Amino acid sequence: MRKMKAIVKARSEAGGLEFRDVTVPEPGPGEVLLKNRVVAICGTDLHIYNWDAWSQSRVKVPLILGHEFAADVVRVGEGVKNVRVGDYVSGEGHLVCGFCDNCRTGNGHVCYNWKGIGYDVDGVFSEYFAMPEMNIWKNDPDTPPAFAAIQDPLGNAIHTVFVADCVGKTAAVYGLGPVGLFSVAALKAIGAAEIFALGRSNAYRLDLARKLGAHHVVRTKDTDPVDYIKAHTGGRGVDVAMEIAGTPEAIQAAIRSVKMGGDVVILGIPNAEVSIDFAADVVFRSVSIHGVTGRRIWDSWFKMKGLLKSGRLDVEPTVTHRFPFDEYEQGFELMKTGNCGKVVLEF
Amino acid sequence: MRKMKAIVKARSEAGGLEFRDVTVPEPGPGEVLLKNRVVAICGTDLHIYNWDAWSQSRVKVPLILGHEFAADVVRVGEGVKNVRVGDYVSGEGHLVCGFCDNCRTGNGHVCYNWKGIGYDVDGVFSEYFAMPEMNIWKNDPDTPPAFAAIQDPLGNAIHTVFVADCVGKTAAVYGLGPVGLFSVAALKAIGAAEIFALGRSNAYRLDLARKLGAHHVVRTKDTDPVDYIKAHTGGRGVDVAMEIAGTPEAIQAAIRSVKMGGDVVILGIPNAEVSIDFAADVVFRSVSIHGVTGRRIWDSWFKMKGLLKSGRLDVEPTVTHRFPFDEYEQGFELMKTGNCGKVVLEF
Amino acid sequence: MRKMKAIVKARSEAGGLEFRDVTVPEPGPGEVLLKNRVVAICGTDLHIYNWDAWSQSRVKVPLILGHEFAADVVRVGEGVKNVRVGDYVSGEGHLVCGFCDNCRTGNGHVCYNWKGIGYDVDGVFSEYFAMPEMNIWKNDPDTPPAFAAIQDPLGNAIHTVFVADCVGKTAAVYGLGPVGLFSVAALKAIGAAEIFALGRSNAYRLDLARKLGAHHVVRTKDTDPVDYIKAHTGGRGVDVAMEIAGTPEAIQAAIRSVKMGGDVVILGIPNAEVSIDFAADVVFRSVSIHGVTGRRIWDSWFKMKGLLKSGRLDVEPTVTHRFPFDEYEQGFELMKTGNCGKVVLEF
Amino acid sequence: MRKMKAIVKARSEAGGLEFRDVTVPEPGPGEVLLKNRVVAICGTDLHIYNWDAWSQSRVKVPLILGHEFAADVVRVGEGVKNVRVGDYVSGEGHLVCGFCDNCRTGNGHVCYNWKGIGYDVDGVFSEYFAMPEMNIWKNDPDTPPAFAAIQDPLGNAIHTVFVADCVGKTAAVYGLGPVGLFSVAALKAIGAAEIFALGRSNAYRLDLARKLGAHHVVRTKDTDPVDYIKAHTGGRGVDVAMEIAGTPEAIQAAIRSVKMGGDVVILGIPNAEVSIDFAADVVFRSVSIHGVTGRRIWDSWFKMKGLLKSGRLDVEPTVTHRFPFDEYEQGFELMKTGNCGKVVLEF
Repeated sequence: MRKMKAIVKARSEAGGLEFRDVTVPEPGPGEVLLKNRVVAICGTDLHIYNWDAWSQSRVKVPLILGHEFAADVVRVGEGVKNVRVGDYVSGEGHLVCGFCDNCRTGNGHVCYNWKGIGYDVDGVFSEYFAMPEMNIWKNDPDTPPAFAAIQDPLGNAIHTVFVADCVGKTAAVYGLGPVGLFSVAALKAIGAAEIFALGRSNAYRLDLARKLGAHHVVRTKDTDPVDYIKAHTGGRGVDVAMEIAGTPEAIQAAIRSVKMGGDVVILGIPNAEVSIDFAADVVFRSVSIHGVTGRRIWDSWFKMKGLLKSGRLDVEPTVTHRFPFDEYEQGFELMKTGNCGKVVLEF
Repeated sequence: MRKMKAIVKARSEAGGLEFRDVTVPEPGPGEVLLKNRVVAICGTDLHIYNWDAWSQSRVKVPLILGHEFAADVVRVGEGVKNVRVGDYVSGEGHLVCGFCDNCRTGNGHVCYNWKGIGYDVDGVFSEYFAMPEMNIWKNDPDTPPAFAAIQDPLGNAIHTVFVADCVGKTAAVYGLGPVGLFSVAALKAIGAAEIFALGRSNAYRLDLARKLGAHHVVRTKDTDPVDYIKAHTGGRGVDVAMEIAGTPEAIQAAIRSVKMGGDVVILGIPNAEVSIDFAADVVFRSVSIHGVTGRRIWDSWFKMKGLLKSGRLDVEPTVTHRFPFDEYEQGFELMKTGNCGKVVLEF
Repeated sequence: MRKMKAIVKARSEAGGLEFRDVTVPEPGPGEVLLKNRVVAICGTDLHIYNWDAWSQSRVKVPLILGHEFAADVVRVGEGVKNVRVGDYVSGEGHLVCGFCDNCRTGNGHVCYNWKGIGYDVDGVFSEYFAMPEMNIWKNDPDTPPAFAAIQDPLGNAIHTVFVADCVGKTAAVYGLGPVGLFSVAALKAIGAAEIFALGRSNAYRLDLARKLGAHHVVRTKDTDPVDYIKAHTGGRGVDVAMEIAGTPEAIQAAIRSVKMGGDVVILGIPNAEVSIDFAADVVFRSVSIHGVTGRRIWDSWFKMKGLLKSGRLDVEPTVTHRFPFDEYEQGFELMKTGNCGKVVLEF
Repeated sequence: MRKMKAIVKARSEAGGLEFRDVTVPEPGPGEVLLKNRVVAICGTDLHIYNWDAWSQSRVKVPLILGHEFAADVVRVGEGVKNVRVGDYVSGEGHLVCGFCDNCRTGNGHVCYNWKGIGYDVDGVFSEYFAMPEMNIWKNDPDTPPAFAAIQDPLGNAIHTVFVADCVGKTAAVYGLGPVGLFSVAALKAIGAAEIFALGRSNAYRLDLARKLGAHHVVRTKDTDPVDYIKAHTGGRGVDVAMEIAGTPEAIQAAIRSVKMGGDVVILGIPNAEVSIDFAADVVFRSVSIHGVTGRRIWDSWFKMKGLLKSGRLDVEPTVTHRFPFDEYEQGFELMKTGNCGKVVLEF
């Protein structure tokens, strides 16, 4: 049985990662075997690296981490019909059942039975890995592997940006981590009228938002975001606010920063309950608040493909750091500092 | 100057209504003069009658109350083009500017500059009253005046029911006041798969919900609504929940009673902030929450007209009491007890 | 190898059906084996029975006909995950690839690679048959088998009715074959304001439309449908017209019978080109014309399930004739006369 | 009574324009008086200049032409509430009733009672003109008058592009007159994946399409557009085709060049009936065909404002020629040659 290197969460403690030899898997019926070119580190991987409360309750060790990748198909299992050896692919990080009412109506992102690759089951941080054909996405051959590898989180941003209509509209993005930055890039690509990028204080990321073309970049540690937005929208607020910071304060501010009849899209995960003045802020103002998770399978992927093809979606500035696969530790440590965009590991 | 009787909020105190002689108004440019057949008492009128905190902060006395009516056009002002003497009409209770971005894109219900007839300006509880042509709705001659008079609140229900897709879907209605009951009737008319009508304890209204065809009628004082709904939807929850009770508990329960990817529509006005677990209840479950106010102008009215025409929207059971106009005090007192559906006053 | 009876298109000529002994199939990986309760005869089956031009070009004999059924699962193949022995099921009549951009975005009804069960591959007119798990629909145990068996064509009607918004709107149905009649029933269930049912001359079917609750039933041999509709809609036309007759005249009339900004939905298959005055009838009137085929997979099925559950979708009058499976010939001959609704065969 | 210069269609013959002295109008109730900065010549004006069949049947001489303008408000009539002296404005070229069911539901572009400024009533090709406040659009002060003046036809393009979803999708534009070129620019602004610009042979306009960023520019005199599109979309066709050429051939090609489930949007006005193979091209392929006229009032205007604000909608290359107002004849003659984009007249 052939062996390969993998990044394994081996022990129930912070940072307990090991660079281990594990067995190269066999592709089962309906599965394909992939050989990695590039993988990318997600905030979820960092949560597990830090072994926070969520990780402790959800992850069973030992587990191979990771779900963002660009790879080549090297073998196909029995019954695989649409994917071929040699295909250059990435993949959806959620395993869905395909049979529940949500899956069967184009809403697999809210499958009742979904599992997360790299936290519920073994992930992709290894030289080879197997994946169901139904999770495979064929990349455009022209897409550089580092950009192909980030499509899962870019897809989160695409999903978030398309929940409400942002084309030709004013939009605010709270939180300038990688998904927030991708959202700025996506809003730029689809012709948002004015983009307000709102970050707490990280100069590196505020600067990235500026590079991506945000019309307004606001450091919320110094400037009240709601006041700023109101002042720059004739007192009315933006059409759409996206909350990707995951704090109670940002959720409250996002709700107050949209216009009457506006939309709030929440992808961030606050770790406490949030108090909302529904009467004044939601009902009388006819505001809609949309919780969002994952990507639309596969609608977000097709939109992403189209926007990449258009030449208008510029993700280049967001992929800021590259390390060899076996120097992954440096990548995780850099991500802890926040002084980066997207960090990828190359094979 | 001709005089007429009117129900006037004359003094800044609870119940301070007077049945006064006031001057019959002249229709200004773009306005029509109407002679009432039937008016209906809204919860808003009761708020003013009770002189609650909202009323005290918003209403300037003296003021003629009321905004729900069925009437005949008896004169038209200069420049009126589409309404004629003899037309049998009702009208939209919100005055909107017609020029802001919301008004100009079919979203006048979220006009930035709207005013409420009967609380911001003089209302319709008088023998005659003037109204802008643009607020007039021509009734089908076959519609009985008592049903024509309740279209403004029926329109609230229509708006609420159409915010999310309820056709062939499971739906829960929290709160069985008149608008809640209208919502049950509207859901029935459009083929909702299963309707859960949820009221706290008022037997009269729970019984009305049953008459209107709710598939499940639940007394929430005794039965936990979320548990009940989950138990009757395979553990998943309803597609859409409507919150028309206006309590923090009902808002929390409504959010928890929808399925993954479900919609919550809030028309009720809670008088306190509500604590929400966004991570568990909204984001990871991809739930959308929609604040709703008023009626879509005029989309909700056209839908209402069509549903009334279809023969499938049965509002008869909801109009439970009729009083002569000058015995309005009985109507208000009855409404305070809650043992009624809609109460109308006849001329 | 066990044998069973099947209705086989054996020879390349009209009526060339045989009631043959064939082998009971084995369910392959991902497939289930079904034992029939009731099957229903589709217009497609009749086309093949009549061996018309379409059949001659598409069907390769010998072939088992049929795709409408209600059956029980008696065995499951390898890898089947969601369907169990004993499940009472029906199924989607189109085999789709699940991988093309249409399939992957909830639009499997326009899969580039679809095949028709019962005309491209062997169908279900036999005691047992195998089918992919992904095509299986679990029936509500309360649904009588004769009604469960007609869900494929009922689903066509549901799809057609939901292409444009018909709730509370005026709608015309051209063509009163089974799918036209189902459309009338569906429009009734969702509260269409006024339903115009338009048939050429078949008294049996005009009468069925009346029983299903159409507000207007028009015999177009005698009465011009466009004139009639205009006369009963204030000169404007209906909101939506559905063309299920499949004639050039009906397509032209359908387009002319909608209001400015109205929608035309075409499910009928005309056997000649149709001349359209785009300037006058389509562009200046902002009319939309929607070609429709099949059912949305599975959105139409879920809507159908919900409407059946609501108690508002009355299909009982449409299933007019029942024959034993081995007397299928009578069913086909009756369908040729047109004096029937839906014809089912019972095991 | 003050006099001013106006371009008047004076005689019922081709080219029968006169540069006449006419009276400066008074703004009536609800109207404003405007002083022109720039006007633009529409294809409609050219139709009247050429005195074609449509013009002869519709236009009553004498008539002031024109409906595209950028102007300043110099007086306001009685009852005007939202527009002020000094406002820098443009306006909607259709007068609509505001009361019919289409107007009242945000669909004024399909008002049953609309009239065209500059062909049904006197237009704007004069130093001053009066217009209802309800038709006025306030320009961003930063918008150059030549760009503000072309918003009416740019709005046609915006309307056309937004009828179907083009964001991140492949799109074809048949016809490269000014509205076709604007459509290319709009598609570029919203991130269309690939834009196919299809013109018959006019090199000037094919070149403009290239400058605006079309990914493919095809001279259809030499190259079959359907073959070309199929060859560049994996054999499937584009998501959306826009027909702005107004020929039967282009309509047929547009329908055949979309993918299964695709959308065709027709703004062009063919002067003959068009034969359509509904079975093969529309029904079995589930294609939708949308007739489009005018602009959504005011939705298209707000989208246009937002896209101009975004910095992504580049209209600069499309305004190719400027003449002084009194040299209008040169503008009309240039437009007859087709060797131009948009032609404006400056005051």
